[in-house]
Amino acid sequence: MTYLKLVIEYVGTAYHGWQVQPGVPTIQGILQDRLAMILRRAVLVRGAARTDAGVHALGQVASLEVDLPVEPWRLKRSLNATLPEDIAVREVAPVDAAFHARHSARGRIYRYQISQGETVSPFLRPFAAQSRRPLDLAAMSAAACALTGRRDFSSFRAAGDQSDSPVKEIRRSVVELSPEWRDLIVYTVEASSFLQHMVRNIAGTLIEVGLGRIPPGRIEEILSSRDRRNAGPTAPAAGLCLMKVVYPDLARPDSGC
Amino acid sequence: MTYLKLVIEYVGTAYHGWQVQPGVPTIQGILQDRLAMILRRAVLVRGAARTDAGVHALGQVASLEVDLPVEPWRLKRSLNATLPEDIAVREVAPVDAAFHARHSARGRIYRYQISQGETVSPFLRPFAAQSRRPLDLAAMSAAACALTGRRDFSSFRAAGDQSDSPVKEIRRSVVELSPEWRDLIVYTVEASSFLQHMVRNIAGTLIEVGLGRIPPGRIEEILSSRDRRNAGPTAPAAGLCLMKVVYPDLARPDSGC
Repeated sequence: MTYLKLVIEYVGTAYHGWQVQPGVPTIQGILQDRLAMILRRAVLVRGAARTDAGVHALGQVASLEVDLPVEPWRLKRSLNATLPEDIAVREVAPVDAAFHARHSARGRIYRYQISQGETVSPFLRPFAAQSRRPLDLAAMSAAACALTGRRDFSSFRAAGDQSDSPVKEIRRSVVELSPEWRDLIVYTVEASSFLQHMVRNIAGTLIEVGLGRIPPGRIEEILSSRDRRNAGPTAPAAGLCLMKVVYPDLARPDSGC
Repeated sequence: MTYLKLVIEYVGTAYHGWQVQPGVPTIQGILQDRLAMILRRAVLVRGAARTDAGVHALGQVASLEVDLPVEPWRLKRSLNATLPEDIAVREVAPVDAAFHARHSARGRIYRYQISQGETVSPFLRPFAAQSRRPLDLAAMSAAACALTGRRDFSSFRAAGDQSDSPVKEIRRSVVELSPEWRDLIVYTVEASSFLQHMVRNIAGTLIEVGLGRIPPGRIEEILSSRDRRNAGPTAPAAGLCLMKVVYPDLARPDSGC
């Protein structure tokens, strides 16, 4: 058996998210389809995170096993030769049989981008939410900071979420101005794992804070209430990007390409 | 009469360049079309640079005159409400009657991006050329530097170019690694003005230098030969972006939006 880890980038605009669904294009579906063509057998691709429809990734990780020898560099080349232009496999590396993209992960880092002002740059439009009114960065930073720690995130949980527990640990939660694009606010959040829509619900709440509709001091109250109705709306999928999946050192393969 | 300056951003992928052409979508054509709808009269939009098909802009400048009073902020809002998602007007500002986007310009700054390696990020694919083999950055830097000054650029001139003279002054010509994207080489070039395809022909030559096919010391010889066949091929349009048009201070309007 060959056990492999894939690092995948995608512009999610044209896809119905990561997870296979009948009749619509998904990232997992396309990867499994291409792998079946290349390896001539059905391959299950396990993703570290189930990104929603329209969400992007710069560092999605997937694991798979195949019952034949596979040279990682060759598989990477074959995949990239057949994948559509908005999906690329950045890395294919051998891993331990015990490695599982989702279960082995110790953390996920997401970025949420918000463009302030009347006009969104056409270069940012597929990758950012828009706030026509300027946002209060200091208030947003304070609110972001108040979300860190091991907390019950029921107030930021989608109705359909099926996680075992609403308790997650946010390790980093930072609001900054983009060094590259003026008027672009970048929110970076790292947690053990996330509830469904959690980052988008946090982003929607941070936008409300930035607009002055929710004072940053109320975050504590929103968390304690465990009531989704107290937080802000779900921010658009386009602003979200899965940046990185964090694994313990032992799962980091020695050789890759 | 109202005299206006527009600053325009566009993702050029879907367009046949700046200049109006019958039967195909162009940036100038779409702007003139939308202005005609909004202002109910034909408006000529003069661009500072005629970008090629597929070339992008973060700072194209255009000038126009209208025989009625126009509030810049209102026109900006109307334009952005009707323009397609890949074109945005970042600024509309009143200017002196003497201002002409092309004739008043004292310089243009372009950026050319080259992604090194087997895989191009799907986020960069529409905005960069690709070199599968790694490029020698030091050699490219030396070659870029050798292009500066007031020179005859006939060797980098498109066959169909109609400029009065092949002599242009390159003020800045720098090759750097992107601070943001790994394996992305960014070439920035500023000149008084450029010949047709000049930046793409320079970029194609720099790639040849980076691949070791042209030694950087030969740039001088290529310039002196005044023979297009001695320089490298025309690099793809997708890698090119018009970053800024430079005007003397007097043409800079006091108020704008």
